Amino acid sequence: MSQNPARTSRWHAHNTRLAAYLGKPEEDGWRGRWYVIIFEAETRAGRQFDVTLLIAILASVLVVMLDSLPSVHERMGTLFTVVEWLATLLFTAEYAMRILVVRKPWRYVLSFYGIIDFVSILPTWLAIFAPEMAYLIDVRLLRLLRVFRVLKLTIYFEEAQILLRALVNARRKIFVFLGTVFIITIILGTVMYVVEGPQHGFTSIPVSMYWAVVTLTTTGFGDLVPKTPLGQFITSMTILLGYSIIAFPTGIIGAELVNTMRDGSSSTPSPTPPSPSTRACTACTFDRHDIDAAFCKRCGTRLPLHPTETAPSQ
Amino acid sequence: MSQNPARTSRWHAHNTRLAAYLGKPEEDGWRGRWYVIIFEAETRAGRQFDVTLLIAILASVLVVMLDSLPSVHERMGTLFTVVEWLATLLFTAEYAMRILVVRKPWRYVLSFYGIIDFVSILPTWLAIFAPEMAYLIDVRLLRLLRVFRVLKLTIYFEEAQILLRALVNARRKIFVFLGTVFIITIILGTVMYVVEGPQHGFTSIPVSMYWAVVTLTTTGFGDLVPKTPLGQFITSMTILLGYSIIAFPTGIIGAELVNTMRDGSSSTPSPTPPSPSTRACTACTFDRHDIDAAFCKRCGTRLPLHPTETAPSQ
Amino acid sequence: MSQNPARTSRWHAHNTRLAAYLGKPEEDGWRGRWYVIIFEAETRAGRQFDVTLLIAILASVLVVMLDSLPSVHERMGTLFTVVEWLATLLFTAEYAMRILVVRKPWRYVLSFYGIIDFVSILPTWLAIFAPEMAYLIDVRLLRLLRVFRVLKLTIYFEEAQILLRALVNARRKIFVFLGTVFIITIILGTVMYVVEGPQHGFTSIPVSMYWAVVTLTTTGFGDLVPKTPLGQFITSMTILLGYSIIAFPTGIIGAELVNTMRDGSSSTPSPTPPSPSTRACTACTFDRHDIDAAFCKRCGTRLPLHPTETAPSQ
Amino acid sequence: MSQNPARTSRWHAHNTRLAAYLGKPEEDGWRGRWYVIIFEAETRAGRQFDVTLLIAILASVLVVMLDSLPSVHERMGTLFTVVEWLATLLFTAEYAMRILVVRKPWRYVLSFYGIIDFVSILPTWLAIFAPEMAYLIDVRLLRLLRVFRVLKLTIYFEEAQILLRALVNARRKIFVFLGTVFIITIILGTVMYVVEGPQHGFTSIPVSMYWAVVTLTTTGFGDLVPKTPLGQFITSMTILLGYSIIAFPTGIIGAELVNTMRDGSSSTPSPTPPSPSTRACTACTFDRHDIDAAFCKRCGTRLPLHPTETAPSQ
Repeated sequence: MSQNPARTSRWHAHNTRLAAYLGKPEEDGWRGRWYVIIFEAETRAGRQFDVTLLIAILASVLVVMLDSLPSVHERMGTLFTVVEWLATLLFTAEYAMRILVVRKPWRYVLSFYGIIDFVSILPTWLAIFAPEMAYLIDVRLLRLLRVFRVLKLTIYFEEAQILLRALVNARRKIFVFLGTVFIITIILGTVMYVVEGPQHGFTSIPVSMYWAVVTLTTTGFGDLVPKTPLGQFITSMTILLGYSIIAFPTGIIGAELVNTMRDGSSSTPSPTPPSPSTRACTACTFDRHDIDAAFCKRCGTRLPLHPTETAPSQ
Repeated sequence: MSQNPARTSRWHAHNTRLAAYLGKPEEDGWRGRWYVIIFEAETRAGRQFDVTLLIAILASVLVVMLDSLPSVHERMGTLFTVVEWLATLLFTAEYAMRILVVRKPWRYVLSFYGIIDFVSILPTWLAIFAPEMAYLIDVRLLRLLRVFRVLKLTIYFEEAQILLRALVNARRKIFVFLGTVFIITIILGTVMYVVEGPQHGFTSIPVSMYWAVVTLTTTGFGDLVPKTPLGQFITSMTILLGYSIIAFPTGIIGAELVNTMRDGSSSTPSPTPPSPSTRACTACTFDRHDIDAAFCKRCGTRLPLHPTETAPSQ
Repeated sequence: MSQNPARTSRWHAHNTRLAAYLGKPEEDGWRGRWYVIIFEAETRAGRQFDVTLLIAILASVLVVMLDSLPSVHERMGTLFTVVEWLATLLFTAEYAMRILVVRKPWRYVLSFYGIIDFVSILPTWLAIFAPEMAYLIDVRLLRLLRVFRVLKLTIYFEEAQILLRALVNARRKIFVFLGTVFIITIILGTVMYVVEGPQHGFTSIPVSMYWAVVTLTTTGFGDLVPKTPLGQFITSMTILLGYSIIAFPTGIIGAELVNTMRDGSSSTPSPTPPSPSTRACTACTFDRHDIDAAFCKRCGTRLPLHPTETAPSQ
Repeated sequence: MSQNPARTSRWHAHNTRLAAYLGKPEEDGWRGRWYVIIFEAETRAGRQFDVTLLIAILASVLVVMLDSLPSVHERMGTLFTVVEWLATLLFTAEYAMRILVVRKPWRYVLSFYGIIDFVSILPTWLAIFAPEMAYLIDVRLLRLLRVFRVLKLTIYFEEAQILLRALVNARRKIFVFLGTVFIITIILGTVMYVVEGPQHGFTSIPVSMYWAVVTLTTTGFGDLVPKTPLGQFITSMTILLGYSIIAFPTGIIGAELVNTMRDGSSSTPSPTPPSPSTRACTACTFDRHDIDAAFCKRCGTRLPLHPTETAPSQ
């Protein structure tokens, strides 16, 4: 639980921007105090509020899950209804509070989290008229994204960012890959539809494409399998060739992670390796030097030694 | 949509070569104007032409797919026939235009894209006499390769090249890997045919080889499974040992991508990246400088400029 | 079987700490001699003792496995019971000996290995009253962790540590990944429960979540498969998108291993690898020398010796 | 087909060692001439001999495969028998020739290839008495290992060596991994045997272990699936946790390949990067210098420049 000052100040900046956007009221009024509790997580009360919400979200989702089991539903259906309604009332009260507390409520209502908050209380209310709506309660899980705010003091947030950055860096490669897989899927689906035909379960090209995706990703449910020798041969060749192509996502993500983790120092933020940024050139202030650099690669000035090193005897 | 000058000039060079090969007519005649529209994608009209083709290709492939669904075929079969014929007429007209417009039509007809263009209009015409030919319309998807020309201003083309380069670099390793898998497949297929035999579905060695490919790649359809204890033991051992071998495609592709992405600086590739080795320090001969280095990081001597760069104004 | 002094001394330090903790008796008494045999593996007798235990553990686990085969149980059930009881008596005697021999027995009894040792003799004794307890004998396998002590002179211990270190370094990323998969699993499970419903086997949300895990990991048993077109479409999209996400574990582990193996020089780890940066060339300050370098590869100056090495006779 | 001198000389050295071991006869006798043809592949005749063998091996294996198809067997069974016998007679003659031609025949007979050669002619002869022996003909595939000798002038041999070296380097890690998987398999197999029991197909612990291997490797045949809620929960947890562990083979191989390919110049053997071995130190003959080394890291002597480089102006 290291209270890294850089991270804390980043969250502080985030809160300041948010406060300016939503219109944070004066801190000494009741609205100001509630704003700090609801929208920020710096104070003890704010953190407790977030943890309470977290538990309520998990509880209400768990209830939906267990309620789908017929045997459990019979025994505990009433309790589940109560818990669901309690959570819904809590979320509704919270939603109303959020609107009341800010000075520009429409900005909150139309924001990303505002919409999620609204959508997550809707299903239970709608379920009064249309019971099957109750399953939509699972969208409450999206509220768990707020968990990052609660966990903001832990290192998990930064680890998630490394993974996300690797995914974002690789987005174009993955898009190209998915496009290639899509074309292979269409061609393979059509070929298998023609070769195997409806009598072996490949009733249409879309169904054959579903089979192609399941096969290419080596999932292999086995609900549709080639039965003709030619179909089995095509399948074998496709799996082998496709296997080389399907290796790309892992390779792409792995390569991005290798690069990301090399750039962003190491994955275990150990104190010893001096951050490259700690050695700014005294002449041109350029500060992204390699660890093994002795001279600034921009202006040629001798770089200061690493803080953790003693000067080599020269 | 960065109009990178290096990339634009590369496409310009491509167009110039193409024009010389196919015999581009004078630009002020109607043939010249149509040549620019059909074969180049630099102008507004040329881009609109390509996008129209793109939509027609996708539409005609979609129609083939949906038409294979019996329920949809009944309701919309006539509409689909119309769309298919419209697309075919469009492609036929385009094909005729391409031949008319160039001065050396045979060179176009016998080129890679010329053959694809011809083959993609053939199925519908042949389907008049032999209906099952209609499914070959899917070869029209190969025309989507032209998409790269339409998307040439985007970065996806270069990302695809990185993936392709990794695959090309790894082609021999993957060939060796596929050869090894092939030998394992034959041996495992024979062993399982002898151990399990026709009574458990392993009706011949080729069928057992199909099972071996499905098993080694961890696809596991489950249509053929070992039933004897010995067969299950051999399968377990094979999966575990094979799993270490099957890890190769991912490892190969991953390692190639790590190398490719390191060489080409970042994942967003720069045009004509100067090889680091071309800039040895004149004082200490150290030659693995970063691309953006202006001074030697070892001894501080000014580095020679990149051959492809003009001197920065200092 | 290289008797690397650094490793030996590490084990020696381990033994010293253990002796202080458990209260090692004087070495010249019988308790001292047995302590060396049982708790240490430096002597010939100690190693033989460990190997005997190893064989007994494997034998008793093998007996449980074979005994579960009805046909083998009929023929050799009595022999198995004898072997099981012999092993149990041996382990019980060993356990008693361990308690007798140390001066602070409770510390051993309550230690990690003490509990494992106790739990691994319990099932057979309890099985007198409740036969189904016999299967718990498999917990004896945990005793195999002691193998590392027996194999401590081999290199496998250090290789295992490299893998473990990669796993430990990646623990937060894997935790984030598992959390993401968990949320996807819940949402996908609910969606498929609503889309496919009990009539296609998705009888409850937990069952659908089981299906989601099996599908996302590309295991694909095929006991539950989507049957509606919408379900098949959602499945195809989920597999393709999920496949990009599921590539993370491999990528994470691979990237960690690349880093771990680069840091720790080669894959065959040397003890206390001197950090390359500790040996800067006194003439040109270049400091990324290979571990086996005696002279600077840049300027030819003699490098300082490794701190952990004695000077080679020259 | 680059006739790399370093590689050629390596093969030459191999042939010299082989000749000394087996006792190569004088080259001017018939035995000497046949020795060169049979055991070496440097001459035109030797290469033709190897290619002929290659075709015969593939043909005889193909015949075994096709003969297992009942429909093909009926039509072409007689032809297949003829081909099989022709190949067997050829191999038998070759085996006799190999024995006749060398001066120390027992060394050949007892060598690795000698045993393979013998075993690969045995099945057909034995099949006279025991027809089911015929399937063992597949061991002839092991003779394909000789292909490397025939292909020795191609680059595939070296690529295979890179893959093999990665596997050899990673052998201990993979051993540790397989050991861990083995223990998980036993524990998981026992747990599922107790939880699911024979009534759901988990008829014994070995069968459950087979299921555990199939599940952990994400093969998922689906012939055995958990049916109880507890079993499905354990399976889900196991798959997710095991998935993190099963990522190791790919990660290990990938990391090894990244390292191997970095050390051994690049994967595309371009002519420019001089093989490290071409720059032996003139003072101490040490020849594994880094490409960027200017001085011998063993003795400090200035290294010769790369042959392909001009001296840097200093």
